[in-house]
Amino acid sequence: MELEFRLKAAFKTSADPTTAREAIENFINNDAVALLSKGAPKGEEAKIENWEIGSDRIKFTITSGRYVRAHDAMIRLRRPLAAKLGKQFHIGIRGIEVDDFTISMESEKDLGSLKIPHVSSMEYTDGKLILHLDIGESEMENRVPDRILTLMEDKIREKSYGAKGEHWDLLWQSEKKEIIFDKDPTQEMMRLGWLKRGPSRGQWIHGPQSTKLFRTFEKIVLEELLEPLGYREMIFPKLIPWEVWKRSGHAKGVYPEIYYVCPPKTRDPEYWEEVADYYKVTHEVPTKLIKEKIGEPIGGLCYAQCPPFWMFMQGETIPTDEFPIKVFDRSGTSHRYESGGIHGMERVDEFHRIEIVWLGNKQQTIEAANELHERYMHIFNEILELEWRKAWVTPWFMAQEGLEGIAEEREAGTTDYEAPLPYRGEDGEWLEFQNVSINGNKYPSGFNVKSQSGEELWSGCSGVGLERWTSVFLAQKGLNPENWPEEFRKRIGEMPEGISFL
Amino acid sequence: MELEFRLKAAFKTSADPTTAREAIENFINNDAVALLSKGAPKGEEAKIENWEIGSDRIKFTITSGRYVRAHDAMIRLRRPLAAKLGKQFHIGIRGIEVDDFTISMESEKDLGSLKIPHVSSMEYTDGKLILHLDIGESEMENRVPDRILTLMEDKIREKSYGAKGEHWDLLWQSEKKEIIFDKDPTQEMMRLGWLKRGPSRGQWIHGPQSTKLFRTFEKIVLEELLEPLGYREMIFPKLIPWEVWKRSGHAKGVYPEIYYVCPPKTRDPEYWEEVADYYKVTHEVPTKLIKEKIGEPIGGLCYAQCPPFWMFMQGETIPTDEFPIKVFDRSGTSHRYESGGIHGMERVDEFHRIEIVWLGNKQQTIEAANELHERYMHIFNEILELEWRKAWVTPWFMAQEGLEGIAEEREAGTTDYEAPLPYRGEDGEWLEFQNVSINGNKYPSGFNVKSQSGEELWSGCSGVGLERWTSVFLAQKGLNPENWPEEFRKRIGEMPEGISFL
Repeated sequence: MELEFRLKAAFKTSADPTTAREAIENFINNDAVALLSKGAPKGEEAKIENWEIGSDRIKFTITSGRYVRAHDAMIRLRRPLAAKLGKQFHIGIRGIEVDDFTISMESEKDLGSLKIPHVSSMEYTDGKLILHLDIGESEMENRVPDRILTLMEDKIREKSYGAKGEHWDLLWQSEKKEIIFDKDPTQEMMRLGWLKRGPSRGQWIHGPQSTKLFRTFEKIVLEELLEPLGYREMIFPKLIPWEVWKRSGHAKGVYPEIYYVCPPKTRDPEYWEEVADYYKVTHEVPTKLIKEKIGEPIGGLCYAQCPPFWMFMQGETIPTDEFPIKVFDRSGTSHRYESGGIHGMERVDEFHRIEIVWLGNKQQTIEAANELHERYMHIFNEILELEWRKAWVTPWFMAQEGLEGIAEEREAGTTDYEAPLPYRGEDGEWLEFQNVSINGNKYPSGFNVKSQSGEELWSGCSGVGLERWTSVFLAQKGLNPENWPEEFRKRIGEMPEGISFL
Repeated sequence: MELEFRLKAAFKTSADPTTAREAIENFINNDAVALLSKGAPKGEEAKIENWEIGSDRIKFTITSGRYVRAHDAMIRLRRPLAAKLGKQFHIGIRGIEVDDFTISMESEKDLGSLKIPHVSSMEYTDGKLILHLDIGESEMENRVPDRILTLMEDKIREKSYGAKGEHWDLLWQSEKKEIIFDKDPTQEMMRLGWLKRGPSRGQWIHGPQSTKLFRTFEKIVLEELLEPLGYREMIFPKLIPWEVWKRSGHAKGVYPEIYYVCPPKTRDPEYWEEVADYYKVTHEVPTKLIKEKIGEPIGGLCYAQCPPFWMFMQGETIPTDEFPIKVFDRSGTSHRYESGGIHGMERVDEFHRIEIVWLGNKQQTIEAANELHERYMHIFNEILELEWRKAWVTPWFMAQEGLEGIAEEREAGTTDYEAPLPYRGEDGEWLEFQNVSINGNKYPSGFNVKSQSGEELWSGCSGVGLERWTSVFLAQKGLNPENWPEEFRKRIGEMPEGISFL
């Protein structure tokens, strides 16, 4: 992709640099040429197109391509030039002032109007997109122009070639099972009083029968998988502040699906008196007024469950013999703002998941994933007797950042477990009820976790969605415990009575 | 308390009522006198001070005290007057128009400036507070003036006599135990790597050792209390919309301590592109912009844990032989915006609790509470070997509405379990680590739950705070499992190894 950076900027000086003209010219014709070509292929060096001396500054116009970028070039010049001016002329460089900075890049299409920070305007002519940047020295140092470039290149690629779409490769498939039940299990559970809709969107209240199923699945996962494989239980936090999502990558794209959390601006009862009084008089909660009285969102409700675990590890170096580290959490709910409409238990805004996390070197991480796959196969084939399949898909850690395709590192990625729901019919969509992911070095790197040995750390995670397991199991096996597989019946024992209503 | 309502209002008529003057006068002198005195003690009747006929209305000035209130008086007049005008004169009453409505009440002190809905202004002179109300017919019918009166009377009482303060009566106290440990357990747990501070305020990440303690307490509660007493597990929702807190009473006063939840205004990725782009370029989350893009708060995070259970029962009539109904939930976190500063595990914003709920008639409810008290005594004395006491305190259902004192019904109320933390010293504050509450008919009535027999339903609840149990147990017994009581050691088995860091 053709690309040009063009920067007009000046080094501000502590005294009139005119006296040093000859030295500056010499610097530009010799030292600078070397500095601006270092690391760039031939013909791709950054160039000083123009320079000029003012009474309190030295002005430059620098152009470049992708390699030594104009803003980096300017920064590269600063220190050696300052050294020269300081020693010989006792002139200091006080800072950089940017007059004009543009990036022009090829694009098949206009991107329309976009609000990008530090981009003051954007125009599209002759197949070129020209961005005018409004930045200063600190943005140059913090690589803001580079992030803008990456962002725009992604947008141009998406606009021109469209989304890559979800990746899906079948890995394994069970034999077809005879259909013994073809109703929607949520409807049947409601009819039998196993659960009721909760008061919030996509939320359920589970009665004793439904809860017993959840707890039996949990017991199976504990006894058949977590304990034999040596996983230790932890408790991960459930309110997730931005800091976690910045490190996990979710801050790049998870916004449309978060339930946001805002704290009160203060605990002072007087501050809230107006709200309480309003409610007491009208019996309505003044939500508009409350929105004014709460702070900005500090983060949101647990979405992916494993990211906050990494705050336990963050910044640590771990003895080599600790690996693989294997832990799990089942201490609370996850929440996603799902698309509207009425759904059953298979698609909920509030759900319960056992989250399994492991880390070690690459081999240990892959090995741990394989062990899990084996135990899951045992559970699904011999205890739950399900019809199911698994597929290699777009990794969740990419999907949740808004990315598509597959991981660069071919051994990292996500395996989805899917099962047919007979009530959806022969060609109905299968339900993803489970996954196992190898996340490469993404988390250890994002949370700065190191191995004593210096070896690269990898990690993986696997989410057991209890609502999803229940949906699949009941859709295939029905709600009559007499028709359930014997190994499962052994483990669930007696179903409790529900609460009955007139 | 001296009190006067003064209402100037008119019945709007479908035709000029002048023709009916005689009949109206007759109505006012006879029927109205009877209507406005019904239910009022002698001398406390509402009075028509003045009346007047306009071309399209009949105007009244009505004054009253507490019994038949001026706005109720106006409503009482409407139907009989309309009947008379309709039959004899074919004149209809079209509605009520309020010209002026004041409430004047005794108050020792000025309350200062307050924003009360439907109160347009407020003045204080000669020991009297005069409220000017801005209301119409529907507010009169919805008893808005009555709610304003109650609210103001509460404020006057509080201002004049001060808060009643927390109620506290000792019920039982164990013998003093020898102090075998006097350190702050949270500090020790951190030192040994049992837990770490979480990324959000008042939040912890529990490592395997700390989690094992939690799960052992949970197992003890299950095996020694919930199973023997016949409690069934349910799953209560953890995102609580206003509807629940309106019914539970929390909407009256819980605002300073809620973590509020706001949904995205839409799931449309384009709507959120600006936010994601901002993050990608600056690596900062634009929380101000996000606050504009999210909806008004729909409610908040789980605070008291039992209220959402009642949505399962809401509007239902229950067969008599179902009682007592006994359930519990341990499916997720509770969150409170606690006061600032650094606290240990005994005071957290995010915590884990087993919530126990029961309902039945009054006797059954009291009996179930007694059973719980017995089992708790067994657990604290024989398994955990704690020093503790219990006290009859301001009921939580009153405290959480901003009320003080004790329940009107003497058999309803809260028993707090408290324990000394030796590291706080001989005179240090004891920690509330547990409660048992009998909530009277509050919940069945708020959520409209009925018994088939027609008998009044009562309910109770008891929260087992796992952080609190851990704080008390470790503060008294220390972190060395060898010093723990034998019955507890039997149940916890081997402590797991923690994750070690360099």
